[in-house]
Amino acid sequence: MTMLAARLRSCFVVLVLVAGSVIPAAAEQKAGQADITDFTLANGMQVVVIPDRRAPIVTHMVWYKVGSADEPPGKSGIAHFFEHLMFKATKTYPEGAFDKAIAAIGGSNNAFTSYDYTAFYETVPPAALGEMMAFEADRMRNLILDDKTIVTERDVILEERRARVDNDPGSLLEEEVDATLWQNQPYRIPVIGWKQEIEKLDRADALTFYDHYYRPNNAILVVAGDVDAETVRALAEKSYGKLERGPDLPPRIRPVEPEQNSRRTVTLTDARVGEPSFSTQWVVPSYHTAKPGEAEALDLLSEILGGGPRSRLYQELVVRKKIATSAGASFQGNMLDDTNFAVYAEPRDGNSVADVEAAANAEVARIATGGVTEEELDRAKDRFIRSTVFARDRQDAMANMYGATLATGGTIEDITGWPDRIAKVTADQIKTAAARYLVPDRSVTGYLLPKTQVAN
Amino acid sequence: MTMLAARLRSCFVVLVLVAGSVIPAAAEQKAGQADITDFTLANGMQVVVIPDRRAPIVTHMVWYKVGSADEPPGKSGIAHFFEHLMFKATKTYPEGAFDKAIAAIGGSNNAFTSYDYTAFYETVPPAALGEMMAFEADRMRNLILDDKTIVTERDVILEERRARVDNDPGSLLEEEVDATLWQNQPYRIPVIGWKQEIEKLDRADALTFYDHYYRPNNAILVVAGDVDAETVRALAEKSYGKLERGPDLPPRIRPVEPEQNSRRTVTLTDARVGEPSFSTQWVVPSYHTAKPGEAEALDLLSEILGGGPRSRLYQELVVRKKIATSAGASFQGNMLDDTNFAVYAEPRDGNSVADVEAAANAEVARIATGGVTEEELDRAKDRFIRSTVFARDRQDAMANMYGATLATGGTIEDITGWPDRIAKVTADQIKTAAARYLVPDRSVTGYLLPKTQVAN
Repeated sequence: MTMLAARLRSCFVVLVLVAGSVIPAAAEQKAGQADITDFTLANGMQVVVIPDRRAPIVTHMVWYKVGSADEPPGKSGIAHFFEHLMFKATKTYPEGAFDKAIAAIGGSNNAFTSYDYTAFYETVPPAALGEMMAFEADRMRNLILDDKTIVTERDVILEERRARVDNDPGSLLEEEVDATLWQNQPYRIPVIGWKQEIEKLDRADALTFYDHYYRPNNAILVVAGDVDAETVRALAEKSYGKLERGPDLPPRIRPVEPEQNSRRTVTLTDARVGEPSFSTQWVVPSYHTAKPGEAEALDLLSEILGGGPRSRLYQELVVRKKIATSAGASFQGNMLDDTNFAVYAEPRDGNSVADVEAAANAEVARIATGGVTEEELDRAKDRFIRSTVFARDRQDAMANMYGATLATGGTIEDITGWPDRIAKVTADQIKTAAARYLVPDRSVTGYLLPKTQVAN
Repeated sequence: MTMLAARLRSCFVVLVLVAGSVIPAAAEQKAGQADITDFTLANGMQVVVIPDRRAPIVTHMVWYKVGSADEPPGKSGIAHFFEHLMFKATKTYPEGAFDKAIAAIGGSNNAFTSYDYTAFYETVPPAALGEMMAFEADRMRNLILDDKTIVTERDVILEERRARVDNDPGSLLEEEVDATLWQNQPYRIPVIGWKQEIEKLDRADALTFYDHYYRPNNAILVVAGDVDAETVRALAEKSYGKLERGPDLPPRIRPVEPEQNSRRTVTLTDARVGEPSFSTQWVVPSYHTAKPGEAEALDLLSEILGGGPRSRLYQELVVRKKIATSAGASFQGNMLDDTNFAVYAEPRDGNSVADVEAAANAEVARIATGGVTEEELDRAKDRFIRSTVFARDRQDAMANMYGATLATGGTIEDITGWPDRIAKVTADQIKTAAARYLVPDRSVTGYLLPKTQVAN
């Protein structure tokens, strides 16, 4: 959830990060939004079909509405565990059969886990779609979760954690910033899980989790590519349609944040750190928890403040003052619960973190008190729209956008109506959002420092 | 769990704070430790009898092995809710009948909730012991938990939270320091509960909690005073003994802390703050989680570093440097899970928090690198022993010590053997504990500042 966290998360949600920048794809699609078809199988499995005829290829994704934030207390890592376990043997196929079948037809596949969902996908020629569904439907219910599999894969995950987190000061800091920013919400817990809890995950935990969440009525099928909705429906009925509906799951109501009243800092000093950096974060509403227009305003605020080289932070800190080598802002809107807004920068040689942080804070304060110009706002909206041209070219990005939105409480109408809602955001709404949420006395700043440098 | 938290906690656990300083009572009792009797009723209720013949009075306490750290996610405050609900009408008695009966015989009563337990007690003439047990046994199973009672009392608790926490910057800071110090353990959540979660507690939550935890096999009866064990046993059999054993409860295994790797600060700036202050905290083992001798060393470390006017912190900051009006340290050893060690001070007029903090840090570093002298250690052990003379005079403190120890995973032998274990602690063990646990790069410092002052 931190800016610095991007590195860790990229392991799990690489496509989702792309999706973050491609929501506007829907803008271009709007005229053709009737092209998007969605329906639900009798067993409750939701299906979305996104036609894309430019190349003989399809992206087939299954999204489970369960992520790390849904884990029981003390069982962190169990959601991500399944990202691994789903590649093991089933009652029908030996381990590796699915991968081999994909490789044989020149396809590709992978999976990722986030706070709110776990997804599995394959990119293959359209003729292989039925085969993909058969494999995917099979592993939804037929995994062999024996002790040997669990223990072996648990060691793999512990090694993954060691390599990606424990050996990387930046990732360690991200974890501690998240644990500080979130006083109550489960986003405080790392997606990969705490080491001491991963170590204790066992077969009973896996069976309970699998039985609970890996069910057609907790899954979303997204198919994008050179295929029509009726073909998808027929194939889905033959594979997923055969699976029995699971017990109804309760609404995904999780502990929420209390009102926050303090300014917090988290400092990790480590000899392995080369260049110092910082990131300041705030709790803000997501598209799912915001009042109407608020999340759209936060999206544009992040764009104006720190969305690339034309942004205020970059222009002021990197171009004009020349005190930073990078500077930016981010807003992770597609989350089920409240999310984070981050501002970050890396000092240029010879400049202190404190100076760069002060300059970044000044930009935040300037936007919270002075607002933005109409011209800036128009340009930001424009950049969002232009990015859709790029996004439309990416079938997997489109599939991701729909999957991530539906898995975090959104609807297809939320996606198709999004460009209109962005267009309606006023300069005043952006100033209000900055003033309301980017309050220094309710912020968390993480400092990643070389062993020789002092924070303040 | 913070030093600053003492004010809030005192509302709930006033006697327990006393108990912290009276553990050595057992030292004096040692010769007569055969006086302490403990047995278990057939329904699983544990009973401890502590004779104290000096006055015609008895302290009758029932401890439930459930506290705020046992609450389900999103239901914070439900344990403390029962501290209130237990004074409501039962199927047998109208609301207030128990209080009136106590008042009529000139007794007193109260209750408190902590992270690991909830306790109810009465101090009365010995002749009333049977009546107290009848009332107490009745409300263990016969509370009327209707919607009206829940809603009314919930409002009372919300008002209590407003008055004690939300209107008190110090208490607000404590909550945010706790939420920062504990990255995973449930001690991060306030005993009184988060406002947004208290607001949603309902009758179903109360019924589930009551049925689960308010059972004889989850309770400890402690009777101290002018009474013998056989009388207590006979009375207990007639009252508590009639209650049916509840289903076995699972072991109290809660999420534990990950390894911490960062230095954190939490700053609350508020116009209502008069004098600035700070407190630095670390996660350390409790008597229940420590390796042999470690918690005893932490107890003596806290005494030498900051236990009163003869301590290093007081002598250096208040007496010699004259930069602080108060300074001290605390270690909360009687906890089921890992606990906190705190160092705190308040600057004298004209001195900055930063200067005082630096001086306190220097004392911590000095003990971690240079250790303590044999003379200091002997004096600290001596002070612990002498405090028992005072403690023995307090029947309620004795009862508390036994209740709190048994409710946090300890045994009667842990109490009776404690003075011997303290006597064996070496200077080297104290240095090792300081060096191992009081590491600046794994600390959390809370700053409470007037609106005009800046932290760093």
